[in-house]
Amino acid sequence: MPQSNAGYLDAAAGLPISAVARAAEQAATEDGWADPAKLTGPGRRSAVLLDAARETMARELGVRPDEVNFVPSGSHALQLAVLGTVAGRHRAGTRLVLSAVEHSAVFKAADWHASRPGALPDAELVEVVGVDGLGRVDLDGFVTAASRPGVAAAVLQSANHEVGTRQPVAQAAAVLRERGVPLVVDATHEVLYGPAPAEAAVFAADARMWGGPAGVGVLVVRRGTRWLPPFPVDESEAGRSLGVVNVPAAVAAAASLRAFHVDRDRHAARLSAFIEQIRGTVECDIADAVVLGDPVDRLPHLLTFSSLYVDGEALLTALDREGFVVSSGSSCTSDTLTPSHVLVAMGALTSGSIRISLHPDVTDAEIERFLEVLPRVVDRVRADLPASGRTSLSEEPSQSPATAERLIDARGRRCPLPILDLARTWPDVELGEVVTVLADDPAAESDIPAWSRMRDQEYLGSMPREDGAVAYRVRRLS
Amino acid sequence: MPQSNAGYLDAAAGLPISAVARAAEQAATEDGWADPAKLTGPGRRSAVLLDAARETMARELGVRPDEVNFVPSGSHALQLAVLGTVAGRHRAGTRLVLSAVEHSAVFKAADWHASRPGALPDAELVEVVGVDGLGRVDLDGFVTAASRPGVAAAVLQSANHEVGTRQPVAQAAAVLRERGVPLVVDATHEVLYGPAPAEAAVFAADARMWGGPAGVGVLVVRRGTRWLPPFPVDESEAGRSLGVVNVPAAVAAAASLRAFHVDRDRHAARLSAFIEQIRGTVECDIADAVVLGDPVDRLPHLLTFSSLYVDGEALLTALDREGFVVSSGSSCTSDTLTPSHVLVAMGALTSGSIRISLHPDVTDAEIERFLEVLPRVVDRVRADLPASGRTSLSEEPSQSPATAERLIDARGRRCPLPILDLARTWPDVELGEVVTVLADDPAAESDIPAWSRMRDQEYLGSMPREDGAVAYRVRRLS
Repeated sequence: MPQSNAGYLDAAAGLPISAVARAAEQAATEDGWADPAKLTGPGRRSAVLLDAARETMARELGVRPDEVNFVPSGSHALQLAVLGTVAGRHRAGTRLVLSAVEHSAVFKAADWHASRPGALPDAELVEVVGVDGLGRVDLDGFVTAASRPGVAAAVLQSANHEVGTRQPVAQAAAVLRERGVPLVVDATHEVLYGPAPAEAAVFAADARMWGGPAGVGVLVVRRGTRWLPPFPVDESEAGRSLGVVNVPAAVAAAASLRAFHVDRDRHAARLSAFIEQIRGTVECDIADAVVLGDPVDRLPHLLTFSSLYVDGEALLTALDREGFVVSSGSSCTSDTLTPSHVLVAMGALTSGSIRISLHPDVTDAEIERFLEVLPRVVDRVRADLPASGRTSLSEEPSQSPATAERLIDARGRRCPLPILDLARTWPDVELGEVVTVLADDPAAESDIPAWSRMRDQEYLGSMPREDGAVAYRVRRLS
Repeated sequence: MPQSNAGYLDAAAGLPISAVARAAEQAATEDGWADPAKLTGPGRRSAVLLDAARETMARELGVRPDEVNFVPSGSHALQLAVLGTVAGRHRAGTRLVLSAVEHSAVFKAADWHASRPGALPDAELVEVVGVDGLGRVDLDGFVTAASRPGVAAAVLQSANHEVGTRQPVAQAAAVLRERGVPLVVDATHEVLYGPAPAEAAVFAADARMWGGPAGVGVLVVRRGTRWLPPFPVDESEAGRSLGVVNVPAAVAAAASLRAFHVDRDRHAARLSAFIEQIRGTVECDIADAVVLGDPVDRLPHLLTFSSLYVDGEALLTALDREGFVVSSGSSCTSDTLTPSHVLVAMGALTSGSIRISLHPDVTDAEIERFLEVLPRVVDRVRADLPASGRTSLSEEPSQSPATAERLIDARGRRCPLPILDLARTWPDVELGEVVTVLADDPAAESDIPAWSRMRDQEYLGSMPREDGAVAYRVRRLS
């Protein structure tokens, strides 16, 4: 990895193109520029390279070459996986079941499926199954939903892209196979260090995750699975894709996955040890922070934590100034002002959430410096937070009109400010007293219950108001 | 162009990646690997490169940068152009009008549009407007069809990809603009040497045509055009595409178009002169051959001819053995056994059709040798044709039972054999006599009338038979 990428701890957003990929792409350019579907000499030479890439990719994924299709991106792979499987099952039904923590490309596919002309109302067509506090899907709920009549396909990721929790794909697949329902698996992050989901009917991967070029997604359709194109296709990739395949990029994707896999176990062990060090630092040296996801059954190279009273974007910027690139599921960093749907589905704190994901070339020195820098940066960002909003004894009628309730008006304030307002008020709150927070930031819906849990206080619930804000009520227990 | 591509006369199927494109792609790899939609440092560096590529592309196409979108292929660009414009006009209607000689990706988009769940029957949704014998759309018919109520969009190519004929895009656009119907233009081949279709509401191009990498299509949506995504998209390319853009490839596409355009007029003049030389050779030195398309208002670098009594695939193979790569619209080369829809729509001879398309680096020596080789190869392929089929005086009742008709049974014989059988029988046919050819090759539908025209004989028409074959009748006039 070039020096310019030192401090890059955002591997799960895509790796720099590896040296192997660059060399393979350049070597394949001379003979791989032509349309491999053409029967002319250049076309045949291109087809030979594409076949070789397909064989390498198939070997690395443990499938047959004719099950591997190169498509224009990881998002294309996911959407073709989901919607093509649904289309192939049109005789069985049109319902789609997915977990609440799938990648946004899967949700976009589901939305599109539900909104086609002539489609049934959304609720009928797409069923979303919840996850527990670690981000793991409710397996019973998932297989029950997927076993209902009219289900065309069920979708489950191998491991979550935001918090790293592995999903019970093998168990779900075993049950669904018996019931004849195809399981579509998002294997984007699992194929790096773990096995590909051999039990899936269809799965998808993205070459950007292992240092391949952009523009290469991998769609694997196992033999025996009925799959039909959901969008217009042509003769490309056996009628599963559209447009001339970028053959040098496919060659680079396959070569770089093979190279990535050579030392996969050693890398996984090393990165996993780094991740445990980071976990230790977060848990010991950062106050009011919580590491998210399953602590054991998880991706080896990824860790996410949330921290109270921190603006995620400010934290990203501060770490960037220290030379570290990470990502955040906090709504503070998003244009839409909605927090990560994964964290919300988990009921996790979204405030100040930071995902750290490591690449195999990360150095001991980088990790050491990150561990040294991280707590200091969190402290600094917290210190820079603005003043609190208005707090008052309620002038509005409370739920139980007998008692006046303390009211915090955090309307117009974005995360993490509503929680900060709550925390700053807390020392004045008496045991047993109920505080109401008025907030219109969508993150509050996840963050106020999460704060209450972290602080061992009693979250009493929420109620929408006419002005569009929501009133959240918390009772002081300790 | 590397030496290995000498003899490559199939430029309209895509060029080898140019030296400029390779250099630009390599230079952009270091800073262009990250997702340009990310707000992290690598993402911002990637976005800077992508913006620069977009500006260059916009300048070369004469449009605004925010009108340019990089999509995964030329076929994606065409389909997004067509279907996104239709989707954006859903309030006006759902009908689509296109010429009969559009690229197959446009027809696939139209088929998909017509077969959506909830769609009206095909005939209502898609109207195909015919072309004349030169391949030029019936302009009056096109604007009349496009002006009917409920038309969402009309689609017309700048110039035909198989025979080179330019289409009256400016005239069609002028009328349709007044009537408020957006014109979608396939500018794939025209943008090389001609201007981009500034008068289009939406147009599409393909970087493979000018030596850019595979995996880059260009979708241009002019300001003021309502365009909505017909497929699930994400935040990529302002919500007009899906998946992380391959930024180094986009940079390479833009740089190579700029380089291509530097000498466009000089190249166009030189290639046009070569094309006229090839035309001369075909017309003077190859018997029973006809050059297709408009002789004047056409692409400068492309020429297609058809020749009687020649198997297109055999001709391709024989030219390949001489070191020349061309392509063919003859059904003999196609898996589907159907001839090019373009040639059929023109009513042109499909038999032995060969498209020659030149790239700017073609040498005088290559053209000289091609001119020397071509007539010889056609003669050789003709000499190798198999014996004729059965010819007999009819044992079946003829259309006019008073006269016995000569019957040629060419069932089971593929092009060019039915025509060869007809031609071989002709010397025995008397003036005024009618010959019936039974054929089940779909090419015969185009080729028997074309042969009759070329030979100044009277084509009387065709009649389908119960056995699936068709009876074609021709009267000897001279």
